[in-house]
Amino acid sequence: MNMLVACAEKFTINGAFRLENHNNSPNCMINGILKRYKEYLPITGDTPIFTIGEGDTPLVESANISDSIGCASLHFKLEGCNPTGSFKDRGMVVAVAKALERGVKSIACASTGNTSASAAAYGAYCGLKTTLIVPKGNVARGKLAQAVAYGAHIAMVDGSFDKALEIARELCLKHPIELVNSVNPNRIEGQKTAAFEIVEDLGDAPDHLFIPVGNAGNIVAYWKGFVESRRREDCNKLPILNGYQAEGAAPIVTGKPVDFPETVASAIRIGNPASWAKAVSARDESGGIIGSVTDDEILAAYRLLASKEGVFCEPASAASVAGLLKQAKSGIDFSGKKIVCVLTGNGLKDPDIANEIEPTSIGEYAAELESVEEALSLA
Amino acid sequence: MNMLVACAEKFTINGAFRLENHNNSPNCMINGILKRYKEYLPITGDTPIFTIGEGDTPLVESANISDSIGCASLHFKLEGCNPTGSFKDRGMVVAVAKALERGVKSIACASTGNTSASAAAYGAYCGLKTTLIVPKGNVARGKLAQAVAYGAHIAMVDGSFDKALEIARELCLKHPIELVNSVNPNRIEGQKTAAFEIVEDLGDAPDHLFIPVGNAGNIVAYWKGFVESRRREDCNKLPILNGYQAEGAAPIVTGKPVDFPETVASAIRIGNPASWAKAVSARDESGGIIGSVTDDEILAAYRLLASKEGVFCEPASAASVAGLLKQAKSGIDFSGKKIVCVLTGNGLKDPDIANEIEPTSIGEYAAELESVEEALSLA
Repeated sequence: MNMLVACAEKFTINGAFRLENHNNSPNCMINGILKRYKEYLPITGDTPIFTIGEGDTPLVESANISDSIGCASLHFKLEGCNPTGSFKDRGMVVAVAKALERGVKSIACASTGNTSASAAAYGAYCGLKTTLIVPKGNVARGKLAQAVAYGAHIAMVDGSFDKALEIARELCLKHPIELVNSVNPNRIEGQKTAAFEIVEDLGDAPDHLFIPVGNAGNIVAYWKGFVESRRREDCNKLPILNGYQAEGAAPIVTGKPVDFPETVASAIRIGNPASWAKAVSARDESGGIIGSVTDDEILAAYRLLASKEGVFCEPASAASVAGLLKQAKSGIDFSGKKIVCVLTGNGLKDPDIANEIEPTSIGEYAAELESVEEALSLA
Repeated sequence: MNMLVACAEKFTINGAFRLENHNNSPNCMINGILKRYKEYLPITGDTPIFTIGEGDTPLVESANISDSIGCASLHFKLEGCNPTGSFKDRGMVVAVAKALERGVKSIACASTGNTSASAAAYGAYCGLKTTLIVPKGNVARGKLAQAVAYGAHIAMVDGSFDKALEIARELCLKHPIELVNSVNPNRIEGQKTAAFEIVEDLGDAPDHLFIPVGNAGNIVAYWKGFVESRRREDCNKLPILNGYQAEGAAPIVTGKPVDFPETVASAIRIGNPASWAKAVSARDESGGIIGSVTDDEILAAYRLLASKEGVFCEPASAASVAGLLKQAKSGIDFSGKKIVCVLTGNGLKDPDIANEIEPTSIGEYAAELESVEEALSLA
């Protein structure tokens, strides 16, 4: 039986569904953002509560990089462990639940890939038509494979992400389609829960949060989450935000939109961030900065995370660690400080970049012990 | 500072490390299999406790497939949300911790890919030399990309997985290298924790567990986990085990090893399972079966999971759901039954198979609203 039927009465509205009285069925859904943080999210008695496993991601302590930083502690928030492999799932579940509540049957978004994959997955789970508007040639292959597998309708447009977002906005204004980009405030609401989890795991907010900045919704969401945690007295302090853009796509750093953003980190290849002003406010309220790192610095951090920490993230994620390493190199003293770096997506999302890594050693041998021993210099 | 230094006294033994008195530092490690299930694992006061985020994976309720099964409930255990994208991390953390405890500096395994990725990640985190022996041409591309990124030493041998395992066993017998394949009993110990989590989430064991069978260690591990949960009275019953091999690699079904196993599901492309006898015992004790499904059935289930449940798993994982659908089609009555299907790995691991999926719709358009409306038949 459909989980939503099993849980409570189902209302079918032209193929979409919604749930009522979910509070009567406390045991029918396991975990998930909507259930776990219900009281802190814009959820009503009419909001369907469901999950495809988002949230509750690991906060892993650095084994090696922390040594070179000289901090009290360094943790990585592994958002790539979300069900579609990125942090987007946290906000998408809220945006889709609220859309279902209003009887919506169709969702759309513009995306560099991660939002697409997430929208398509929740669309599939909830029986919605999902339309994705993606900039041609600018989406990592794994992400497109996900969107195809989830059965989304994909329109590749000959333009940048920013242009794709413009079209998606117009489309959703004109037609009864829900826009599930991060300009949808429910997305930010869901994404703020990552900050709640960090506070729960550390017992307080960290001193510094390092986070990649693309469309800039996530840094806004984290700040909202920490501020709310502080207001509830779940934490005693607020972190200093350190947002990092890629040098070739750093409009917030330079102060003007970038017409042709370029970076190896496709997830943050955005020239005119939708949440620009809010990101600047969050930065300033926290006393932090939004800086930039080069592609070389991003890729160096990407390789370091995999080979020294066992964390395989996508290139954009490594911008947070690249930013931390840059600050440490410039002489900033982190002694006594607790630091969290947000790693936004799974390295498997972008196999083409992964395949450019120079192998430590890889070779083909005859299938016998002696050949392998020789290869390993054990003979 | 290195997390293990931060937690307790560190003993460096020729480059490897071990921890003592980890019990004195209750707040230094967050979650993870070793900490969470310490009392049920072979952990001593000398075993280092660490995590890269393994375990605590989502148990997601079916939204659509359950309808066609007619069961009381159907859940998917998303092992692809583990940090390296497969269930292997649960056992690897225990195997590596026990190896570190004995001062081991080097680990090795044979692998169709998932074990490789996991061993390489833990090896990187713990500063060990990791050697992977993989059958040439039989490892999914994403998995190899992971192993390369984590900095492992990779020997591709011109033979099957079974031959690679034979070489790995010989290598580890002859040299001071720890074998971390599932013939290492610590692997099974760690993997059993997935059964503990299912019992915790459902409040009891399910009536049926469906699970892919390759080298057959995982079905043995789940059975051990459920039996231990039952002994502790955490659950009131034991599940019936339904293991599924791919038809072209089904030695347990046919009763004899397969010299040249063939299936699209590379993670279970194994002709002579290391845990064969134990898997047969587990099957019989549970009153279950080990059957086979064709590649077509596996791929149909793989597509169905993505497009109707929003779950993108690797092909081998879908063997569990293919088996369930096959049983339901044959007329088996699941009414009133609670079912769990184990989905062992992330779909992003195998981008080549994903790219063979026929898109629902995908097209290239000019970057303007009208073109996209036309594409979506909204004009």
